[in-house]
Amino acid sequence: MRIFPAFIELQTEQGISLHDLMPELRQSVTQSGIQNGFVTVTSQHTTTAIAINENETRLAEDIKSFLTRLIPPGDRYLHNDIALRDCPPDEPENAHSHLAAMLLGSSEVITLVNGELVLGQYQSVMLYELDGPRTRKVSVQIYGE
Amino acid sequence: MRIFPAFIELQTEQGISLHDLMPELRQSVTQSGIQNGFVTVTSQHTTTAIAINENETRLAEDIKSFLTRLIPPGDRYLHNDIALRDCPPDEPENAHSHLAAMLLGSSEVITLVNGELVLGQYQSVMLYELDGPRTRKVSVQIYGE
Amino acid sequence: MRIFPAFIELQTEQGISLHDLMPELRQSVTQSGIQNGFVTVTSQHTTTAIAINENETRLAEDIKSFLTRLIPPGDRYLHNDIALRDCPPDEPENAHSHLAAMLLGSSEVITLVNGELVLGQYQSVMLYELDGPRTRKVSVQIYGE
Repeated sequence: MRIFPAFIELQTEQGISLHDLMPELRQSVTQSGIQNGFVTVTSQHTTTAIAINENETRLAEDIKSFLTRLIPPGDRYLHNDIALRDCPPDEPENAHSHLAAMLLGSSEVITLVNGELVLGQYQSVMLYELDGPRTRKVSVQIYGE
Repeated sequence: MRIFPAFIELQTEQGISLHDLMPELRQSVTQSGIQNGFVTVTSQHTTTAIAINENETRLAEDIKSFLTRLIPPGDRYLHNDIALRDCPPDEPENAHSHLAAMLLGSSEVITLVNGELVLGQYQSVMLYELDGPRTRKVSVQIYGE
Repeated sequence: MRIFPAFIELQTEQGISLHDLMPELRQSVTQSGIQNGFVTVTSQHTTTAIAINENETRLAEDIKSFLTRLIPPGDRYLHNDIALRDCPPDEPENAHSHLAAMLLGSSEVITLVNGELVLGQYQSVMLYELDGPRTRKVSVQIYGE
């Protein structure tokens, strides 16, 4: 079995933003030349998540509203007492982003058959930025023959 | 390493319903003849999820109540303004289903040792239908020797 | 491709507690001698979860508070009517733990390059105990060359 490693790097937006990774994933699969196997997609940050959903503008707004209501950034979190932690004084107050990342998850694994990712019609693998804007990295690895 | 692809197709029920995939997963493992490796299970839809939990009737009811309270179907969601989206007019109003799928996740990976899925006594890999009833597909792939 | 199976066993604390698995994961990778491939980490219980997050004491307290508010253990759950279920009479009343495990997820997959797990600076793979104290097992499998 061959292993083809790749990275996706992208610039995110303020607060919560969603980023469709399908163009980069499909390009990596083509570059790998692997036809049958699987692909792992893993976030490289504790305040981003990887999840599969429909890439639809209005749904993205619903997701932002929902996560902001579920985990209000302005609530009291111990992690946001930067002065009480052993860390640089300019660390962001982002406990809410960590909590959202925990719920959404950091990795997905997708089957690869005949050079195509086996996903439904509306499914896009997406990076969820939960504490932007930042430069972010996603680890992609393609396995198979 | 050998790769054995399989699909599970099933008919779901109204609204939220849980479907234990273990009988089909065990059957696919047996058919594959693979003894040691791993199994990936990936949802093929943006309003279903794959998660591991106990298959217990009363817990399934708790899950339905919890998700309905957490993400009320009757709340205001932009995704449900079908007329404002570039999509067929008979699309379902299912923003709440997408949000639940996002939280539950779309894939799990399970270890396979000596022909057995390495899972605890009460663990079942399950499909969570979040916008039924529909005919649904799950991608299963078995890897190993 | 070689497959190296491992188990991590650990003793958890009362209620919700977080356990950083990185020391054991790195030790298993070293023992396996595998340099390039991937690692799967799968919970063996329906009331524990596997997720990647920052291992920071105050954030762990925020996670406990958040999950307890989101899914109050004292709420009414059908799964907690032990007498009405077909199970031993000393089963714990832990519907809230099952619901949290469902949201957090049971497995993660991490890329392995040049003998190192490909994770960001603050990322730790962690076991989330949601119904402790108990003795818990995590299935780890390392694949590659």
